[in-house]
Amino acid sequence: MGIGHWLPGVSVVGFALLLGAAGTGAQEQPRLNLMPWPASLQTGNGSLRIDSSFSVALTGHTEARLDRAVQRFLRQLSRQTAIPLSAKTSNKPALNVHTDHASKEVQELGEDESYTLSITADGAKIEAPTPLGAMHGLQTFLQLVEVSPDGFAAPTVAIQDKPRFPWRGLMIDVSRHFVPLEVLKRNLDGLEAAKMNVFHWHLSENQGFRVESKKFPKLHTLGSDGLYYTQDEIRDLIAYARDRGIRVVPEFDMPGHSTAWFVGHAELASGPGPYEIERKWGVFDPAMDPTNEKTYKFLDEFVAEMTRLFPDHYFHIGGDEVNGKQWDANPKIQEFKKSHNLATNEALQAYFSERIQKIVTKHGKAVVGWDEVFIPGVPKDIVIQSWRGQESLAKAAAQGYHGILSNGYYLDLGWSTARHYAVDPLSGPAASLNPEQQQLILGGESCMWAEYVNAENIDSRIWPRNAAIAERLWSPQNVTDVAPMYARLHAVSAQLEWLGLTHRAYYPQMLRRIAGPGARPDELSALRSLADVVEPVKDYTREATATAEPTSATPLNRVVDAVPLESDVARRFGELVDKFVSSSCRDAEAAAQLRAQLLGWRDNDARLQPLEQRSFLVKEVAATLRDLSSVAAMGLAALDFAAKGGVAPEDWKAQQLAVIEQVEKPKSQLLLMPAPAIRKLVEAVAAGGSCAASK
Amino acid sequence: MGIGHWLPGVSVVGFALLLGAAGTGAQEQPRLNLMPWPASLQTGNGSLRIDSSFSVALTGHTEARLDRAVQRFLRQLSRQTAIPLSAKTSNKPALNVHTDHASKEVQELGEDESYTLSITADGAKIEAPTPLGAMHGLQTFLQLVEVSPDGFAAPTVAIQDKPRFPWRGLMIDVSRHFVPLEVLKRNLDGLEAAKMNVFHWHLSENQGFRVESKKFPKLHTLGSDGLYYTQDEIRDLIAYARDRGIRVVPEFDMPGHSTAWFVGHAELASGPGPYEIERKWGVFDPAMDPTNEKTYKFLDEFVAEMTRLFPDHYFHIGGDEVNGKQWDANPKIQEFKKSHNLATNEALQAYFSERIQKIVTKHGKAVVGWDEVFIPGVPKDIVIQSWRGQESLAKAAAQGYHGILSNGYYLDLGWSTARHYAVDPLSGPAASLNPEQQQLILGGESCMWAEYVNAENIDSRIWPRNAAIAERLWSPQNVTDVAPMYARLHAVSAQLEWLGLTHRAYYPQMLRRIAGPGARPDELSALRSLADVVEPVKDYTREATATAEPTSATPLNRVVDAVPLESDVARRFGELVDKFVSSSCRDAEAAAQLRAQLLGWRDNDARLQPLEQRSFLVKEVAATLRDLSSVAAMGLAALDFAAKGGVAPEDWKAQQLAVIEQVEKPKSQLLLMPAPAIRKLVEAVAAGGSCAASK
Repeated sequence: MGIGHWLPGVSVVGFALLLGAAGTGAQEQPRLNLMPWPASLQTGNGSLRIDSSFSVALTGHTEARLDRAVQRFLRQLSRQTAIPLSAKTSNKPALNVHTDHASKEVQELGEDESYTLSITADGAKIEAPTPLGAMHGLQTFLQLVEVSPDGFAAPTVAIQDKPRFPWRGLMIDVSRHFVPLEVLKRNLDGLEAAKMNVFHWHLSENQGFRVESKKFPKLHTLGSDGLYYTQDEIRDLIAYARDRGIRVVPEFDMPGHSTAWFVGHAELASGPGPYEIERKWGVFDPAMDPTNEKTYKFLDEFVAEMTRLFPDHYFHIGGDEVNGKQWDANPKIQEFKKSHNLATNEALQAYFSERIQKIVTKHGKAVVGWDEVFIPGVPKDIVIQSWRGQESLAKAAAQGYHGILSNGYYLDLGWSTARHYAVDPLSGPAASLNPEQQQLILGGESCMWAEYVNAENIDSRIWPRNAAIAERLWSPQNVTDVAPMYARLHAVSAQLEWLGLTHRAYYPQMLRRIAGPGARPDELSALRSLADVVEPVKDYTREATATAEPTSATPLNRVVDAVPLESDVARRFGELVDKFVSSSCRDAEAAAQLRAQLLGWRDNDARLQPLEQRSFLVKEVAATLRDLSSVAAMGLAALDFAAKGGVAPEDWKAQQLAVIEQVEKPKSQLLLMPAPAIRKLVEAVAAGGSCAASK
Repeated sequence: MGIGHWLPGVSVVGFALLLGAAGTGAQEQPRLNLMPWPASLQTGNGSLRIDSSFSVALTGHTEARLDRAVQRFLRQLSRQTAIPLSAKTSNKPALNVHTDHASKEVQELGEDESYTLSITADGAKIEAPTPLGAMHGLQTFLQLVEVSPDGFAAPTVAIQDKPRFPWRGLMIDVSRHFVPLEVLKRNLDGLEAAKMNVFHWHLSENQGFRVESKKFPKLHTLGSDGLYYTQDEIRDLIAYARDRGIRVVPEFDMPGHSTAWFVGHAELASGPGPYEIERKWGVFDPAMDPTNEKTYKFLDEFVAEMTRLFPDHYFHIGGDEVNGKQWDANPKIQEFKKSHNLATNEALQAYFSERIQKIVTKHGKAVVGWDEVFIPGVPKDIVIQSWRGQESLAKAAAQGYHGILSNGYYLDLGWSTARHYAVDPLSGPAASLNPEQQQLILGGESCMWAEYVNAENIDSRIWPRNAAIAERLWSPQNVTDVAPMYARLHAVSAQLEWLGLTHRAYYPQMLRRIAGPGARPDELSALRSLADVVEPVKDYTREATATAEPTSATPLNRVVDAVPLESDVARRFGELVDKFVSSSCRDAEAAAQLRAQLLGWRDNDARLQPLEQRSFLVKEVAATLRDLSSVAAMGLAALDFAAKGGVAPEDWKAQQLAVIEQVEKPKSQLLLMPAPAIRKLVEAVAAGGSCAASK
């Protein structure tokens, strides 16, 4: 097949040719478990065998970080294959990694992350301008290693790869629930695997101030319940991230979302204290006093300390969701607004933003902030993080401002992977920007807000869906087909396990807690059958559907906390129903598969009843269990109609749809995901058209 | 129910009454998930609710270790329930822990480990003479916490508990495969939960010398491939163990099993060097030169260093399996034997043992050694660890020597839990010892030899079976019924997960490696169906059945490495067949369950074939897959005979048994565990008697 070895400075013509050769349309994708999908890929015949003689050589620019990356690569390869691999050198290393020159001392936005990877039966070669690209190449190699009929192997392939966007991040809120350092570290491992390059650390909130401040120790001692990161731990995490090609952007949310600051420093607030750490969720009144010069003096000293601690050029000042109630209630602030010609609270916040932005700039950093901080006229090196919608991003870009997209990438909202995957930073209003303006859109960040996650289930809320968002931000814009995305995601999810991520292992363990350790295997499998087809309620409905107001003391031990946010079983069931219905209900194999699935669901109710008696956590989902039985019976009846070639009567259909309407309402904060597909089935067999008519 | 609060010095009469009230026969055991089962237990009505207000108070003797134990207890309780618990104090703590006095500075054999635990709806109380008992009581409490119809709760109960034997240990061989420190730590957590009190650390072998020696650094630098514990790490682990009421007994195996010593110190050996770290398994020729005074000088200095490092009173010198070949081949040694009147190599080893025992004694320690070190006339404070059989233990006790039993507790042999559970240190020849002699039998140790385990699967080879051995060594001798043991083991296994043990989580992950990350869910479930009913070959047959000689470089990634050592599915299937056959084949429900199970197995073959084509690790088990299909079809045919009330013809039976005989032979080092039950089924339906005759 004639794969050559490219140098990093490969010509654009060659690049385009390869693109053409491999195609990027999803239907043409070869079956490789790569995510993000590379910019250009060519496959060949044969493969490179991986056995215990496998070794890696580094050439060109060297640094300790590259050595560690190779150690990590070998450890990971050894985990994936269980082949013992040592870091021995070899005369004929299986993998050569050539790096041209160093990257920046502190990783910068927009550094060259490109690499090429070629694999033949004789060996493999990664070439990259900087260590960033070399490390990406190692991750791609790991994804290519597969079990084959003859042993572990990596297929013959030629890849030229580079990211579409320079800012590809994950935000984790560590304030609403504290996230231990080792949990963050394994998620950074996940980011490296997904080629994301920013960890946005949301460090302060109403519910907790999570950073040790030596200057103002009351911030963390009184504002964190003892759950905070020491400065040594933070330096350790930043080094850990740098080793993986990841920038760390700290966020201190101001002037709202700041109750935890006020526990130790009530003088910063706009209303009288004392303050306590907030235990509930939502938007709260406390906000910093933007009219008090002492606030800015404090923040100046605080930002001085934090910008020394966090080396990244960007510093996130939050700025979202100030409800203005404390400002309205404070006569001194009202007076200030009048005397300064600030007509609205928005104008007052703009005043605050401007002041804090000047402080950050004074300390040598550039500001990132949520939508609200975008005030026409602010310095051009600000980055707007858009959470409200894509419009604001386009608007900012049109005025020459940088932006990153998070709207559409909120992992806590429980969207399907496909829905996140469809969100493109350059779609919607941004699509009509001119190319120069589009360049201002730097990428995006997925966001993991932490009302309903803790160390136990957080990995499952981030992964594997985050890998698909990472692909959106890395891969060519036309890589959009959903079916191959899900196939690759399934494989990548399994591979992510070897990093120590617990996004799969947590699930049977939480189900065993729900069932009790003494539950019999058949009872557990019945619980699993139910859990596999429900999803938590979506978007911001969790508080509204709660029977008691949730707080940070609420145990996250219910079915709603345990189930993955996306039901693979229900998705596949839906695909099967589509297949059946679109075949005019004549696909016998699909019918048999549907029947088997529906029978299992129908009879699950009886199998779970003993557990329902014993566990309050199972009892809670009894109604959903009944619903599953009832829609399964309905689906079986629909299949019977179809099998007999009859048309289901209209009154039957009406009855069933009335039932489904009830079933589709959330119960115990759960959605029964197969319901819409059953609805489709019922409608098909009752229709004169598609299903019944073709008989 | 009137539970009083006992003081540690409770009268024997009261104790006996409680014993009588609760009974200890397994059939009378209330359904509590306790393991080891306590010496005395009384249940009542009601329960203590566990919610976020739960707190613990310590009274009486206090020390930092108890505070840490309570922290650990709360963390564990919080994991089990997902209820956030802080270490706050309370006016009315739910659990009071009263400790009378300190235990020894360095934990000693035979210290008081007793405790009482009472739980009522109003609160719970643990009372213990020393922290050792208090910590055991906390573990018992954790096992009692269960999910109930109203929330998490601990049942009303009164327990008085103390161990039957004072030496209850687990040995881990860290030499054949290195076991990282964090893996040892989570296993120490498991030992604490199981109330075992000795960790026997097998630190040197032909395949590795795993301890940093500052005196003789070539031991670990040349003898370990860099995989050893630093002295700081060892001190850390010893402190970790002490915190959990566990003694650490180091073993340095001499004069055999010592090739790794000779890589750096060939002068210690009986044959000429140079030596390399051994990569294979088995008994090898190299042995220390027992005739060279320099050997003893070296060992004196080495033991001096190690006895300072390891504070326990006992020091294990190994002493097993010297084949004598190097001694026979060395003229100088032959000469020495003659001049010292040592007729045999056994006598020569006895000479060595006596010398090394004197060295150990000189450094203030008592010797533990395997069977072979028992030479009549050795000092009485030696402890014989019996691996060859129970006879040697009884023989030593009859002569006034202490012993611990390991024969019957070798976890690597793949025995069923029931088989280990049936082994009692005071059964067999020990049963006829007089009470004083029986007192010399101190307990036992399970042994995890490490030819076929690594960090990934070792937990699964130790747990949950080790909990049943721990029960044998702790609980009253008459707690022996197997069915309730398995029920409790099942629950305790789930609880052990919350400690971070990976004995369950490793399994689906290893199966996904075998199948490849892209395998479809139905393919994975087919692989699981097969894997769930096979077990690795037993005892010492693994080398004999291997197609290539295994070494320490052999990847442990095959089905034989992945499956648990005991098939729960096959055990339950066997129980179901027994039930069916013993009901004269008239139990319709059992027949239906058997049929469902057999249909699944019969059709599994077809479901797995795509994976067989793709993965060499699945292809390897193709024959076993065929076998499962074929015996399942056979079982279905047998059920058909039974259903028709007919008697299966003799020639059919003969054909089937011939097939089963083939099926029962190990293939790819796996045993197909349902085969014997199918044989029973076939025989039953073909017999004129039990099954068919009753129709």
